[in-house]
Amino acid sequence: MLEKSTINRVKSLNNKKYRQSEQLFVAEGSKIILELLGSKIQIEQVFATQDWAAKYENRIKANKLVIVTQKELERMSGLKSIPDVLMLAKIPIQKFNASLLSNSLTIALDTIQDPGNLGTIIRTADWFGIKNIVCSQSCADVYNNKTIQASMGSFARVNIFYEDLKTLFSENKFQIFGAVLNGKNISEIKPPQNGILLIGNEGNGISTELIPFITQNISIPKYGEAESLNAAVATSIICAHFIMK
Amino acid sequence: MLEKSTINRVKSLNNKKYRQSEQLFVAEGSKIILELLGSKIQIEQVFATQDWAAKYENRIKANKLVIVTQKELERMSGLKSIPDVLMLAKIPIQKFNASLLSNSLTIALDTIQDPGNLGTIIRTADWFGIKNIVCSQSCADVYNNKTIQASMGSFARVNIFYEDLKTLFSENKFQIFGAVLNGKNISEIKPPQNGILLIGNEGNGISTELIPFITQNISIPKYGEAESLNAAVATSIICAHFIMK
Repeated sequence: MLEKSTINRVKSLNNKKYRQSEQLFVAEGSKIILELLGSKIQIEQVFATQDWAAKYENRIKANKLVIVTQKELERMSGLKSIPDVLMLAKIPIQKFNASLLSNSLTIALDTIQDPGNLGTIIRTADWFGIKNIVCSQSCADVYNNKTIQASMGSFARVNIFYEDLKTLFSENKFQIFGAVLNGKNISEIKPPQNGILLIGNEGNGISTELIPFITQNISIPKYGEAESLNAAVATSIICAHFIMK
Repeated sequence: MLEKSTINRVKSLNNKKYRQSEQLFVAEGSKIILELLGSKIQIEQVFATQDWAAKYENRIKANKLVIVTQKELERMSGLKSIPDVLMLAKIPIQKFNASLLSNSLTIALDTIQDPGNLGTIIRTADWFGIKNIVCSQSCADVYNNKTIQASMGSFARVNIFYEDLKTLFSENKFQIFGAVLNGKNISEIKPPQNGILLIGNEGNGISTELIPFITQNISIPKYGEAESLNAAVATSIICAHFIMK
């Protein structure tokens, strides 16, 4: 039987403060965990039901695997539908260097606060082969359970950095495409080979302090009545336009 | 003070069964409700704080407005962040006729189960001027609180029908574009003037029984590693390609 302290430790990682002090995060569900087993992510511990372990234990070092009951998983899980496997893993150390961004398209997120939106954007970036996402410090945390679920394992393949965007844009000369409501129609923009696609907050758009760094305002043309698009949808449509041939 | 029965009635509408028997739904938050006040949606009752009412009561018939405390709203609300206004409204009667779909692009959703995805697709449809969405009976309910929140008022402007898709496709001759993993690159597809964009379930794709009706398999080309795209994102990228000029 699992000790209560173990369950509490897993649950405490729903809180960003504890994730940062322990440098650990939680992933849940067979699909994501099987993806992570083949990735660069370092596993700390896998908690699985007997049934799950019977199928996949050959893919995990024996000393990392703990067999638990469905009931114990229910007590550890942050999800509505209880998974048959849950993993503790190390937060990878990502060293940022602005030169990483010079030869390809990068997404910069300014205060994207919804963890589901952040996860969906990471998944889209991974689909389109975008390697780097730079988040403002005010964005949702990539190791939030909801972000991880929405990103579906893609968070392990895309580099996600948290930087002060104003400093980054002040100290470097980038081509910056800012997604705004009255910019140039993306159909009229030649897809760039490199540069930054800057996406603003769900409700308030791009921060005033970042506006002066935009070298090209861009917009998705509107044909109907909606006031705006979901931030992850807008990012995805622009990425599709910039990447697809 | 609100009677407990009123609070319970509002809360019961989180359940589809009660929404259907009462033909009522709940919307929450100032932004969505202000949009709905100007729409075809028929209001049953608005529960608002004194502060909200002071600003907007001229937009609501006096006999529809009930002033409540923040505490009472908290007891009625299905949201995490308590709104300062909540509305009960009538579910509009939507009469379906297949001829509605003949002259424009329609989205058909096969078992989209996540209410957030459904709401996001409705919002995107409204942005691109797509008037009709046909959902399989197995899709999430449009009057689910999460769908309404994600659609941001767009659910009142887009016609959303629930039909048996197999019957619909058997009895009518449509051009049907099926979003699949190994279809023709959408970049090579001439944007159609009419027809149906068929989107499948988040995990399982398009149902086997609907596959034979597809007249053109289509795909968003992949440049990276993600196994798939979020269903609302995929729908939005294809809509953008089909609609944008």
